[in-house]
Formats: sequence, C-alpha cells, structure tokens
Amino acid sequence: MATAGDVNLFPTEVYSQRISAAAAGAANAGLAGLVITPGYDLRYLVGSRAQTFERLTALVLPADGSAPTVVVPRLELAALRESAVAELGATVADWVDGENPYELVARALRGSGTEPVTVAVTDSMTALHLLPLAEVLGAVPVLATEVLRKLRMIKDASEVDALRNAGAAIDRVHARVPEFLKPGRTEADVAADIAEAIVAEGHSEVAFIIVGSGPNGADPHHECSDRELQVGDIVVVDIGGPYAPGYNSDSTRTYSLGEPDAEVARRYAVLQRAQAEAVSAVRPGISAEAVDAAARDVLAGEGLAEWFVHRTGHGIGLSVHEEPYIVAGNEITLEPGMAFSVEPGIYFPGKWGARIEDIVIVTEDGVEPVNRRPHDLVVVPV
Amino acid sequence: MATAGDVNLFPTEVYSQRISAAAAGAANAGLAGLVITPGYDLRYLVGSRAQTFERLTALVLPADGSAPTVVVPRLELAALRESAVAELGATVADWVDGENPYELVARALRGSGTEPVTVAVTDSMTALHLLPLAEVLGAVPVLATEVLRKLRMIKDASEVDALRNAGAAIDRVHARVPEFLKPGRTEADVAADIAEAIVAEGHSEVAFIIVGSGPNGADPHHECSDRELQVGDIVVVDIGGPYAPGYNSDSTRTYSLGEPDAEVARRYAVLQRAQAEAVSAVRPGISAEAVDAAARDVLAGEGLAEWFVHRTGHGIGLSVHEEPYIVAGNEITLEPGMAFSVEPGIYFPGKWGARIEDIVIVTEDGVEPVNRRPHDLVVVPV
Repeated sequence: MATAGDVNLFPTEVYSQRISAAAAGAANAGLAGLVITPGYDLRYLVGSRAQTFERLTALVLPADGSAPTVVVPRLELAALRESAVAELGATVADWVDGENPYELVARALRGSGTEPVTVAVTDSMTALHLLPLAEVLGAVPVLATEVLRKLRMIKDASEVDALRNAGAAIDRVHARVPEFLKPGRTEADVAADIAEAIVAEGHSEVAFIIVGSGPNGADPHHECSDRELQVGDIVVVDIGGPYAPGYNSDSTRTYSLGEPDAEVARRYAVLQRAQAEAVSAVRPGISAEAVDAAARDVLAGEGLAEWFVHRTGHGIGLSVHEEPYIVAGNEITLEPGMAFSVEPGIYFPGKWGARIEDIVIVTEDGVEPVNRRPHDLVVVPV
Repeated sequence: MATAGDVNLFPTEVYSQRISAAAAGAANAGLAGLVITPGYDLRYLVGSRAQTFERLTALVLPADGSAPTVVVPRLELAALRESAVAELGATVADWVDGENPYELVARALRGSGTEPVTVAVTDSMTALHLLPLAEVLGAVPVLATEVLRKLRMIKDASEVDALRNAGAAIDRVHARVPEFLKPGRTEADVAADIAEAIVAEGHSEVAFIIVGSGPNGADPHHECSDRELQVGDIVVVDIGGPYAPGYNSDSTRTYSLGEPDAEVARRYAVLQRAQAEAVSAVRPGISAEAVDAAARDVLAGEGLAEWFVHRTGHGIGLSVHEEPYIVAGNEITLEPGMAFSVEPGIYFPGKWGARIEDIVIVTEDGVEPVNRRPHDLVVVPV
C-alpha cells in the first residue's frame, strides 16, 4: 500500500550522477543503451518503486548520454510521481492498451532507424517483456549486471548512512528478542512479535523472519513453523527489512533457552571465532573468497567444516541479496564502500543449528560492522 | 512466512493431467519442451510455491512425454516438499554453487547431445536466467503462454469451487465495510480494518486493497492515502486475496457517506446497468471484446463512455490478473470454465469515481457470478 509517507528519495543530483555513470558504462561496453524495467536497478537509477505488471514500464537510457525516456502505461503514470523522473529531464512516452510499447523503446534508442540494436537489460526483466523486446530490437539483449554491478556494489556516503541506520534498527529488535522467546510459544508466535518490533523500530516493512528452533535451526532456509519452543532449545533468529530510503538490514543472532550443554557451547565458540576472523579479514584489496575462507578455515581447524553448508555472505543494499557474494570462487577484489553480510553457520541435521551474522562495510583501510550486538550465544533464562 | 498450514494441494492426479497436457501442447507447437521457473505456471503445474532467487529453480518438461526434471539448488530442496513433485515421478537434479544449472536443463532435454533446442519458458522467467539458458540451449526460447494459456484459462471443477469460496469470502468482507467507513477516518485506517477482515474471513493473505475516497476515487490505480473521509464522499473499495489452495478473490463495490446527490445517483445507475449488461452478455461462443463492448455501449448511450478509461476485466485464478483479458481487440471466444472480472468504472478527475466488479465463471450455457453482494451504491448513514 503506497502512502504519502513512503516517498523518500535522495537528492536529484545523486540519481543524475548514477544515470550518467550507467550510460557511460553502456557506451564502454559497446551497447546502444540500457533498458530497465521495475526492480532494484530502476529504484537505484531514478528512485522509482514502480512495480512490474503485464504492461511494460521501462527506463530507456541511451549510451550516447542523451536524455532518458520512460515508457509507461498511461494508467500507471501516477506511479512515477514517487521518483526523480520529473527532475531528471526524462522524456515520458506513455502508451495505452493496443499500442506496441516495445516500438517506443526502439524509437528512444534508434529514432526512426531499423538497424539491429543491442541493449543491456535489468536482471529482473521478465520473459514476457524480454522476448518481444528482443524481436523488435532485432538482437538478443545482454545482462545489465556487467554495466551496473560496480555502480551498485560501491555504496556512497548516503547509502552507507542508510545501511548504518538499518543496522542500528535491527540491533534494537535483537535486543528485544529474548523477551519473545518463552517455552510453549510457537516459532510463528515469536515471528509475529518480531514483525511488530521490526516496524516499531523504524523499518518501513518486514523483509524476512527466520525463527529456527531446535532441529528447525539445522535448516538454513527454514522460516518459521508451529513448533513450540522447549527448554534447552537453540534458536536461530535471522531478521531484516528495508529502512528509509529503502536500504536493508539483515542480522542473525542465536539464542539458547536455558544454559546450553557443554558440547553446544564448545561448537558455538568455534563458530563465534570463525565469524570474528572473517570480519577481521575484510579490507580493501583482498578477495571475496578470502573472507569466505577465513571463516571456513577456523571451522575446519576444529573439524566443523562439513557442517557449514552455505556461502559466508551476500552483498546488501536496496536488495537483501546482491553482489558481492562472499563465496569460494568469487575472486572479486574488495573495495571501499562495498557492503555485505558475514554469516557463517553450523547445522546439525535433526538436532540444532547456529548462525552469527553482521552486515559490514569495507572502509578505506579495514572494516566497519553496522551491527553491534554481542556475538555470544544469548542465554534466555527459563 | 511458510507454516505447515500453508500446504494445500489438489490431488496428485490433477497435476499429473496438467503436466501431460502441457507436454502435449509443447509437442504440438514443435518445441522440445517447457522450462518453468517459480511463479504461477509452476504452481499450476506441480503445486509448488517455490520462490525465485538468484539461483535457478526450474521444472523441465520434455515434449516427448518423458518424466519431468526439477533443477533446484541443494539449499532449496526443502521448498519442493510443499508440492506434488515427489508424487509425480519427477527427477530431481540438485546443484550447488559453482555448478552450471543451465547445463542440467539442457541435459534433461537433449541428453548428452549438443544440437540447438527451442523451448518455451514461463512468462515470469527473469533475464538473469533466460539469457544464460538461451546461450546454453543455442536458441532463443519462446513464451510458454501459447502452450499454457488454454490450460490455465479453462478452470476445472475444483478450481471453480476454489473461486466460489474466494468470492463468498470477499463478499463477507464487503458486508462489513460500511462499519469501517466513518467521516474523519483516513483511507489507510479503513484499509487496515479491511486487511484484518480479509484474513479473518478466511483468505490466506491480502493481495490488494484500494480505498479511493472523493477525488482519489477518480484514479483507478489509487491504493490508499492519509486522506480523511468526509460526509458526502463517494468511496471505491476494490479488494481481494488468495483463498486456499491459492485462488484469488477480487470484488469492488462503491460506497457513499450519506445520501449521494442526484447527478451522482443518476450516473451510478448508468454504471450499474452497464455492469449488469456486461455480465448478462457472458456465455460460451461470444468474444471477450463483446463483453467489453456491452458495458461500454451502455455508458456511451448516456454520454459517459469517455469516463470509462480502462478495460472491462481480466481473467483470474492463481494470479489476480491473467488471461482472458476483457478488452477491445481481444477476439478470443469464451468457453465454459473461463473466469474473469467484469468491472466497468467511471472516473471524474478531481471529483469522484465509481466501479462495480464481480468475478464471473462462464458456464455451459451462460454465466455464474461468484460475487453476490447487491450492486447498488451502498449508502452509509453518517
């Protein structure tokens, strides 16, 4: 539901710079331009949260630096109000049912010409639009990721501030989680309380809530269930949501209902060391996979590597999962302004699991975590 | 949030028949098969509500009728549990980060061969998956709409039952709307009450809520705002959501805070007649556009055609908007089992708007509306 309060944009010059950089990137890649349907790239470039429907809405960005065109169904013109489109000097090409909107895209790129035109399209463009667009343009598009990856990966000062605010907000939620965890309550009960707290602490909405208790904690993608919490449960709580103007929080802490047994405590301590080592490894000049290895090596040293079944982290910003991915095989070099999660976990099927997750920012000479809650297993008195 | 209660599937043979019909459709179209990523088509074919992420999940359905393959990230195997995949004899080809899932799709279609393979892909497949898939298959896919349209458009008896249940549930919500409409309350206040009622009346969630009061009612795509209701307001309330096992409701009624003035009443009466005429026009053998014309002709006869600025309706089922679209230019012939909205409206910019919407099912010899609330302008005493 859109309300007036949702409008929350950076100053126009931020979008103006992003558009120029994106157009230059397309030119460098030898492309005619970018065609961006609604999604995170559109939000990044013009601040618009327009949604995608069966009717085409698209930002067309010619590589030659000429003014962008927004192709939009006349019925959905109002959705553009909540964006920087009006201030950016973009041409609005509206269309009504019965017209061919892909022709409007082609015209914005090649005028009245008919030569094949290769463009880059946003990752989230659907086949419904991509296939007819390819036909009208006479060439199969490429992914815009190559052009936009670097732009979106390197957060500027205002984006870093937004991530800090989001991090502080989710820390306030984690501070309240112990009061929600009581034997006999279901994971779904706890999740409902957390959902309220996520919004109460300033997020604009809930993006995801994982409450994995006991054996459910051993499934990294478990969300929540009707399982009732029991004394002795280890509970993984992984939560987050967007914070104005839309940058996401994402933090995991693990809780214990009563004192954990000695073996749980021992294994958790190894995980805690793995997470801390991986955070300490973050600095400009090292690779994404080196951060993954830093966590994995600690676990391997204690015979726990086989229980760490996912990558160490993912980039974060307007989207909860974006580049850079912190995973073996990703040789990308970290640069100041990159933001991602560091979240190793250990999972013992049928028994319990644990994960510790902070969002961190690569600084000029090291790392700044935006989540500041203690990393110990949080023992909830029962 | 997934809970155990969400699992709600048709019997396996329903999915088995749909898969056979889809494979036969692909064969008739001269295609090697279908590749279906998460979305409504996947839900229709195997009951899965798996979501789409950066990692490929896809149902591969060879046109030769051999067993389907599900390509899925190992981490997301659990999401398949809530589907008929296990009972359908499908091969599960799971993969881990670092492997190329598009090769797994190709192998399911052409074994170890290397010849170009043309497949149809679901409308919602994203460029992120479609472009690498096209490269591995050596041919640009086509849209699966042609193959699946007829299957998905014609609802079987169990789907019609589901739509009836959804219709009755949203009717119960509309019955309660007058108590929410009070001068001084905002549209957002009203929407919050409606959201609660939508779930309380049995929907699994809220899909959309439009509360358009006074001048806001003149924007067909307005959702809701902080505008406070006033005595004399005409209020458009267009609401719906999915009902187990996932079929949607969608119904609009228009309310008046206090008695409307004579001109509003006169125009509303014309709209009411237009909606009734369009519903009466529905029967097997006539075209979708004829239903649109039936509504438009009544409005034109009273000089109101120019204020009816959208199509008359859209198909509905697992998706809120699907084929058939009830619009000028759509010559598709209506057949028993088709389900769609009939929702003419009139919009007077800056002043007020009104819309009346029922979901109807085409029967063997006519039409069955699933929404049964009175169609009059609902006068709320103030």
